[in-house]
Amino acid sequence: MSTHHSEVGRTYRGADPQQRQQERRVRLLDAAVEVFGTTGYRTATVEKVCSEAGLTKRYFYESFTNSEDLLMATYARATDAMRQNILAGAAAEADSTEQVLRAALTGFFTFVAENPKSARIAFVEILGVSSTVDALYRKTTTSFSETVLQVAEGVGSSRGLAGPNRRTLAMGLVGAVLTIAQQWLLSPEREPLDSVIASAHTILAAVVFGRVDG
Amino acid sequence: MSTHHSEVGRTYRGADPQQRQQERRVRLLDAAVEVFGTTGYRTATVEKVCSEAGLTKRYFYESFTNSEDLLMATYARATDAMRQNILAGAAAEADSTEQVLRAALTGFFTFVAENPKSARIAFVEILGVSSTVDALYRKTTTSFSETVLQVAEGVGSSRGLAGPNRRTLAMGLVGAVLTIAQQWLLSPEREPLDSVIASAHTILAAVVFGRVDG
Repeated sequence: MSTHHSEVGRTYRGADPQQRQQERRVRLLDAAVEVFGTTGYRTATVEKVCSEAGLTKRYFYESFTNSEDLLMATYARATDAMRQNILAGAAAEADSTEQVLRAALTGFFTFVAENPKSARIAFVEILGVSSTVDALYRKTTTSFSETVLQVAEGVGSSRGLAGPNRRTLAMGLVGAVLTIAQQWLLSPEREPLDSVIASAHTILAAVVFGRVDG
Repeated sequence: MSTHHSEVGRTYRGADPQQRQQERRVRLLDAAVEVFGTTGYRTATVEKVCSEAGLTKRYFYESFTNSEDLLMATYARATDAMRQNILAGAAAEADSTEQVLRAALTGFFTFVAENPKSARIAFVEILGVSSTVDALYRKTTTSFSETVLQVAEGVGSSRGLAGPNRRTLAMGLVGAVLTIAQQWLLSPEREPLDSVIASAHTILAAVVFGRVDG
């Protein structure tokens, strides 16, 4: 492909222009996590994020349309990481069904504890911005119920999530875990992470391993 | 107290000024439910709400500081009604513990189904408006976990919500029910109410009646 070298552009300090643009994009995302995740999205400006990133606005518009676009990108990156942590946790404990659920939850809550600014974006700042952002939030929340079903199917005896209402149940479990994480994040005196994981585990395990009604 | 009649003011068409102000306040709240609950809070204006209520702005500022104040009042009215429906449902079925939970949930979901505009305000429009509104949302959500504990204590065998982590568990259950209701409300093709109530009941019952972990 060397005949098309001009399309790739000149390299500079070992990185081609696309790589350098990608690096600037990541710097802006990191700066946005800092700004949106501490003082909040509502009072944030493109200027503030650029100043935090040490980049001019020209570089901002190279990667993002506006502040809302950047918010959605930070949200997508945070929720992707949460999902990876859930699945990696579950995959690391394939032996016992109880342990798979607990490890998946530990993966999720550890990310929240270690990345409180990204978590604040995902649980608080993303809400009520615009109908476009709302739609992304709902789509992502729904996709997490698929992740719950995927983890539950991975464990052997997930009879509680095998019925026709499995999607609604999974959505309820996502809501339970999200709300516990959100309230934990926002509470001034946080209870120990182990204790929060245990509560989330109690709810998931009760449903996944199936309590028969009536 | 007739000597202080001037403090109460003149009556007009059988209603004293305070009563009439209260009536106008309710008309503005009803109009706000119509406006915020259909086209949304973000694009709403005081003018739009006044026009819907058939009242001038002078009467608006007699009862509310601004549009955000009105939003919080509609939210408080909606969530108070939800709580009343939950408790009334639970109180009507004091015989069987299973039936109490189901009746409490039926009370909640019936309100949501019959008042979709108020429910949209409580589940969607209230989010991400300002830190004042966020604080009200969190306080109200927490208060619903107290309602869950109250209903659970009312039923005999609520051993699942008797431990030291009962508050976190109750918060998770509130999140589960809220998320199921929110997604049901927002879905273009809604599943039957009975089916949604059954899913919420499965999650609550599994935890309330206690699945022992391990």
